[in-house]
Amino acid sequence: MRFPLPLSRLIGELKRLPGIGEKNAQRLAFYLLGAPRERAESLSRALMEMKDGIRTCSHCFNLSEGDLCSICRDPGRSKRSLCVVESARDLIAIENTGQYHGMYHVLMGILSPMKGIGPDDLKIDELLDRISKEKVQEVILATNLDVEGESTASYLINTIKPLGIEITRIARGIPIGGNLENADQVTLGMALDGRSKV
Amino acid sequence: MRFPLPLSRLIGELKRLPGIGEKNAQRLAFYLLGAPRERAESLSRALMEMKDGIRTCSHCFNLSEGDLCSICRDPGRSKRSLCVVESARDLIAIENTGQYHGMYHVLMGILSPMKGIGPDDLKIDELLDRISKEKVQEVILATNLDVEGESTASYLINTIKPLGIEITRIARGIPIGGNLENADQVTLGMALDGRSKV
Repeated sequence: MRFPLPLSRLIGELKRLPGIGEKNAQRLAFYLLGAPRERAESLSRALMEMKDGIRTCSHCFNLSEGDLCSICRDPGRSKRSLCVVESARDLIAIENTGQYHGMYHVLMGILSPMKGIGPDDLKIDELLDRISKEKVQEVILATNLDVEGESTASYLINTIKPLGIEITRIARGIPIGGNLENADQVTLGMALDGRSKV
Repeated sequence: MRFPLPLSRLIGELKRLPGIGEKNAQRLAFYLLGAPRERAESLSRALMEMKDGIRTCSHCFNLSEGDLCSICRDPGRSKRSLCVVESARDLIAIENTGQYHGMYHVLMGILSPMKGIGPDDLKIDELLDRISKEKVQEVILATNLDVEGESTASYLINTIKPLGIEITRIARGIPIGGNLENADQVTLGMALDGRSKV
């Protein structure tokens, strides 16, 4: 005998989640088996409500509960700057700094010739459309600082430059709490290049 | 802004699972957000079917889909030996060795004065009842080899002994692949005590 069928089915489903292996899936399944029925119910419900309740903002492609996301609907946000990010998770990370009060544009992916993802697979046409129609004065490129993020930023710089608006890129440098000894050469070189007057 | 409500609700539910922290819960929630709807549906369904479909065997307290578990219903199992375990997970671990073909009795817990768990909280009366009514010839005590498992085994030895049947305890020793140098003194002492003729 192995586990009773309904249990092994749940273990199978849990195992398909990223970063959850057989042992971990068993542990979770047995936990849920022992937990009150309401616990399982509320998890099950939260899962389906998330699937049904979240869509993509038709304007900036952020996560949204309605047609427009809470940022696009907020009249208090500055329309002058447009921050371009790869995903809604990156947008949330920037929002959580509490330091940015402009608009966003989510690319919904990153250029990757290796994975066959080209400009047409991202929300780049929509970005150019917004830049030309809205009174954007600065486009902040906040894609990751890795190879794909940098090459997507380069592509966007070349594409947006003809439109004649200011383009900026988030700073490359040593993270807070980091030390020079452990920084890689490229980062340290960029931190030197990007030095600011004190 | 933080996450949209249906997403933060799901993250909250996932965070309540054992061993899943904030970052992990976010990662799982975003994975499920991006996965096809059927994935979320089948996980949600598996969860509720497990909650509704699994109960406790009325005879041995193993996990079961009906009144009696698959082991109690199996006429091919030997009724002569009764293996006593703390939980259904331990039963499954023993079943997976493929070496035991007798019956089981799940205590559904372990004696623990610290947690206020006494003999009346476990399925000990039911065990004694089975021993006296069924033709059991050997009771195998397969509780854990930790303090609580050992003291529960001692308690059961004292309780079952007057009934005059054979009582055995699973072997204490060096695990396969283990080496003597790293074994603790108590285990090594017990491995010596429990040596067998070759």
